[in-house]
Amino acid sequence: MTADAPFQPETPALVLDEAVALANIARFQAHCDRLGLKSRPHIKTHKLPRFAKAQIEAGARGITCQKIGEAEVMADAGIDDILITFNILGEAKLARLKALAGRIARLAVVADSQTTVDGLAAAFADGAATLHVMVECDTGAGRCGVQTPEEAADLAARIAAAPGLVFAGLMTYPAPGKAGNVERFMGEALGLLAARGIECPEISSGGSPDMWHAGKAEGGSRNLVTEYRAGTYIYNDRSLVERGACALDDCALTVHATVVSRPTPTRAVLDAGSKALSSDLLGLTGHGTIIDHPDAHIAALSEEHAVVDIPAGSLAVGDRVRIVPNHCCVVTNLFDSAWLLGADGSVQQIDIAARGRMT
Amino acid sequence: MTADAPFQPETPALVLDEAVALANIARFQAHCDRLGLKSRPHIKTHKLPRFAKAQIEAGARGITCQKIGEAEVMADAGIDDILITFNILGEAKLARLKALAGRIARLAVVADSQTTVDGLAAAFADGAATLHVMVECDTGAGRCGVQTPEEAADLAARIAAAPGLVFAGLMTYPAPGKAGNVERFMGEALGLLAARGIECPEISSGGSPDMWHAGKAEGGSRNLVTEYRAGTYIYNDRSLVERGACALDDCALTVHATVVSRPTPTRAVLDAGSKALSSDLLGLTGHGTIIDHPDAHIAALSEEHAVVDIPAGSLAVGDRVRIVPNHCCVVTNLFDSAWLLGADGSVQQIDIAARGRMT
Repeated sequence: MTADAPFQPETPALVLDEAVALANIARFQAHCDRLGLKSRPHIKTHKLPRFAKAQIEAGARGITCQKIGEAEVMADAGIDDILITFNILGEAKLARLKALAGRIARLAVVADSQTTVDGLAAAFADGAATLHVMVECDTGAGRCGVQTPEEAADLAARIAAAPGLVFAGLMTYPAPGKAGNVERFMGEALGLLAARGIECPEISSGGSPDMWHAGKAEGGSRNLVTEYRAGTYIYNDRSLVERGACALDDCALTVHATVVSRPTPTRAVLDAGSKALSSDLLGLTGHGTIIDHPDAHIAALSEEHAVVDIPAGSLAVGDRVRIVPNHCCVVTNLFDSAWLLGADGSVQQIDIAARGRMT
Repeated sequence: MTADAPFQPETPALVLDEAVALANIARFQAHCDRLGLKSRPHIKTHKLPRFAKAQIEAGARGITCQKIGEAEVMADAGIDDILITFNILGEAKLARLKALAGRIARLAVVADSQTTVDGLAAAFADGAATLHVMVECDTGAGRCGVQTPEEAADLAARIAAAPGLVFAGLMTYPAPGKAGNVERFMGEALGLLAARGIECPEISSGGSPDMWHAGKAEGGSRNLVTEYRAGTYIYNDRSLVERGACALDDCALTVHATVVSRPTPTRAVLDAGSKALSSDLLGLTGHGTIIDHPDAHIAALSEEHAVVDIPAGSLAVGDRVRIVPNHCCVVTNLFDSAWLLGADGSVQQIDIAARGRMT
């Protein structure tokens, strides 16, 4: 993180350090390039066309979104290769999906059930637009995804047989630290697909916690994954610092707050609570790291206050602090706008364009 | 809760049942009226001028806000008696506070330090506008507030001596279940104020968890509290149901979601995650109650997914569910708009006007 610019926004404020974000983009893209791994960053973290474009300019093949609304904002900004890693269901959403597919170069989604595939197939049956569909596979994270390579192959066959749909490969969000599961699942699925004569153009994995292992099998050789979706890496956060995936100086997103109360010698209260930092713990204790105050511990949040345990004597009412939150992706989602500290030294307030696009 | 209206919004959707909300307002106002307790509802829960006005029409003396930005939205809508329960600091915020004080009938804030009071006194010294200031007291919640009745009396004297400021009483947010602490603290503080010849016009307490005990001392007699700030009570939520403060049918806010995946016989995945429900647990296990599916348990949230443990056979891909979230106040804060199911049977989409007003 660069030195604090001499600006004092009203707090709580979301502050983005562009130089650090661009360095994070470049570093992970170089990792992917070295391994011949395609990169498809997840924009859920930043929700900003500006940074989506920077990711593509750095070498990403396209972007990942979680919501059609996010993808619509990115398409409006000129991004033309988008994967939505979500099962899209229902008439209204399918109509929006089809409209979106008609106006960008390549739109892909994932599916993990016949119901989802049948809905997509019906919506795209007239051939007016093409939709790429990946099969989502549960390789141990316990969320969405088909449970076995056999199910993956069956669903791929159903997609491949549907006019208007193109089978685009296998996708997973692995449980952190379980890349071995991905190899076993995908290896078996590839065999089953080959036996049926179905080509698998891509195997897409993701997650910033394991990003530096992306593309590598145990022992360091190239693994089966061909595309990687990382999101958090652009900003980093306390959870990634604690996991050893980055340093505190690599965190591009901070929340600036003001000490509004010092009720006791060892308690300070900040004007940033769960409505600014979120309650996400991600397995951590406490609610963020206060830069330059390593002895301070954010012990509790209420909606608009953070209660900080501090050594006697430090921090006074009116002092400003910078917080690296536990989980940057949910913090972006809480602010309508951010202060962008430009790599050129400029400071400007920018809208979080895709924030609030919940559907 | 009324029966589900025959409308199918794109999910996730924030849905408000007006009839239930109005009944909740009426019920708590009647409780206050019975005890001669003034009501000053906290609008952080709904962030809607419409419901602030309904609360005042029902008999509330004014409203409570946590942020100047919320108060500005409410003032724009014609609300003219506002308490901001926050230490306001810094030139920019003090200028906004003064502008706000100049355009409504009565503006009050709280303070718990000399630094805060001195800033307020300087901003209002020219007499162009009057600011009412309460002393915030920590009666056991461990957040903001002076620690002793002596400190409270000292700060009250400082406020009373400042031109432009009016000492408006003592305020606390009690630790749930510790109303006895409030009585002891406030009783002592009243004695100290009286000894100094300082009148204490109000003792303000708050919190929906203890709302039905508001105004009553142990044994049932009237206690020292004269004004009560409840917020959550307008919508209620799972946390209040679990504490016995309301029934599930009294919950006016639900999040509607769709089953997007059924990966295993006992797992369903919904399209509402921490960006729709928040991660707030409030001491509970799980992330909300699914209405009509008492056997379902929302076991985990990621940003855009909820993982639900269910008995085999229930819920299919595409099914819609209604969730009563753990904590309604933070859910309102995540949506730009809500569907209002009108008491007259109408359905309309409304903006959450004061959402995102973080400063």
